[in-house]
Amino acid sequence: MSGEKARIGFVTVSDRASRGEYEDLGGPAMRAWFARVLTSPWEAVSRLVPDERGAIEQVLRELADEAGCCLVVTTGGTGPAPRDVTPEATEAVCEKMLPGFGELMRQESLKFVPTAILSRQTAGVRGACLIINLPGKPSAIDDCLNAVFPAVPYCIDLIGGPYLETDPDQCRAFRPKHATNGDEKRAHGVMP
Amino acid sequence: MSGEKARIGFVTVSDRASRGEYEDLGGPAMRAWFARVLTSPWEAVSRLVPDERGAIEQVLRELADEAGCCLVVTTGGTGPAPRDVTPEATEAVCEKMLPGFGELMRQESLKFVPTAILSRQTAGVRGACLIINLPGKPSAIDDCLNAVFPAVPYCIDLIGGPYLETDPDQCRAFRPKHATNGDEKRAHGVMP
Amino acid sequence: MSGEKARIGFVTVSDRASRGEYEDLGGPAMRAWFARVLTSPWEAVSRLVPDERGAIEQVLRELADEAGCCLVVTTGGTGPAPRDVTPEATEAVCEKMLPGFGELMRQESLKFVPTAILSRQTAGVRGACLIINLPGKPSAIDDCLNAVFPAVPYCIDLIGGPYLETDPDQCRAFRPKHATNGDEKRAHGVMP
Repeated sequence: MSGEKARIGFVTVSDRASRGEYEDLGGPAMRAWFARVLTSPWEAVSRLVPDERGAIEQVLRELADEAGCCLVVTTGGTGPAPRDVTPEATEAVCEKMLPGFGELMRQESLKFVPTAILSRQTAGVRGACLIINLPGKPSAIDDCLNAVFPAVPYCIDLIGGPYLETDPDQCRAFRPKHATNGDEKRAHGVMP
Repeated sequence: MSGEKARIGFVTVSDRASRGEYEDLGGPAMRAWFARVLTSPWEAVSRLVPDERGAIEQVLRELADEAGCCLVVTTGGTGPAPRDVTPEATEAVCEKMLPGFGELMRQESLKFVPTAILSRQTAGVRGACLIINLPGKPSAIDDCLNAVFPAVPYCIDLIGGPYLETDPDQCRAFRPKHATNGDEKRAHGVMP
Repeated sequence: MSGEKARIGFVTVSDRASRGEYEDLGGPAMRAWFARVLTSPWEAVSRLVPDERGAIEQVLRELADEAGCCLVVTTGGTGPAPRDVTPEATEAVCEKMLPGFGELMRQESLKFVPTAILSRQTAGVRGACLIINLPGKPSAIDDCLNAVFPAVPYCIDLIGGPYLETDPDQCRAFRPKHATNGDEKRAHGVMP
């Protein structure tokens, strides 16, 4: 699928940004990271939703099932406050959860702030789409993407998505030796 | 809410201690830690229950909903044995789980004993109450509280509880710069 | 129970190995690790199943309930691909989950490959049987067993299984001081 444009969903979850009371900083920060790092062709599909579980679930399903995104990243709504429901919405739409993403993002954020343990960020797979929750704060978005993204292209290979390539000076994507290109990978099957 | 006394629940979960066959060491160890660390006004609400899921759930609900505790800490019942059901009871009464607490407590305990991975400690939020499972052993209680407590006062801010303050020589509570007092924090909203 | 032979279940989960298209390397790698490390009497009960959730659940139940295994280790099926369902099958048959095993195995594997976060390995308890998911790759199996096994004999003590002993030059099993033998351990009760 090397010639095809990968579609990547960017979801900002914020009551205030969705009411226009607050500029959405998380969405642009996520897109800027991908613009700097990805070298294979891709296009952004952006959404802005309030902190409502139903609305978040709906937009995640739409991006995975209708827009054909191989990857959706969210920003916001992962804390302990009553309106923070992004992880619950993510878990509700995913068939399988990947707890290692949340573990590593919290561990990475713990290097900067002890309140990193309050983040409930998670990741999971819906069909051929990987969904990852990122923090709300732009600088923390970069820290988390730098930490987990090396595993993302291979994950997308495994769920049947397009072959993503990165600028190794920005972020070194890792694939096991038996999976150096999409066809070879499929011939060898699943193997993390 | 600075003038108000924070209520903190201390729950010892132990068949033998609840039958009087064994002195409760975990409860006093938890209270001693808070007496040493908290500088804002607070009072203890203590309970002792057997390792019965229903009894634990009931006491957690009572402390959160009726006694008005902003924080409940438990000791005991987090291992793999058949009678260890504290994490299940905690999850059953919480609206949202905070996996980062268990991850960090296990990681901290792993510095001392390889059996730290047998602990199923977790934390979660019920209404305006944060519930945290601690180990049974007094020295391990201190290690776990030292590890996670820096994030606790800000978590309680975010769920609408009283403003807790600590002796920074004992435990340095962390709040993001935009959240240096309760009112300012509420104006800025949720942000881990 | 020192005189009794411990039964250990080895489950290879693989569509291709179960169809005979592929040699099962994971099963022999797991058994070789135990042959090198365990010094107390034990015997292997081996199974090979396709990546079908129902088939995996059935074999786990059979090994725990009928074959009387105190420990079952699985290899394969823990990744994010559609056919990877070993963690779901494990969770479905266990009464309690032990998240610390998956956390530590991912952390250990992260020292070697950034794709370690794609592993969904977990562990749990069914009756008197501990079930642990291991990776598919033989070298990663060894890394994961070296990381978590020091806690396994004491876990099996706590759930009422036989007293496992290891060659301390290969893997140092850890038991708290109050639990240096099975009888003493039972007298002191559960205590991680």
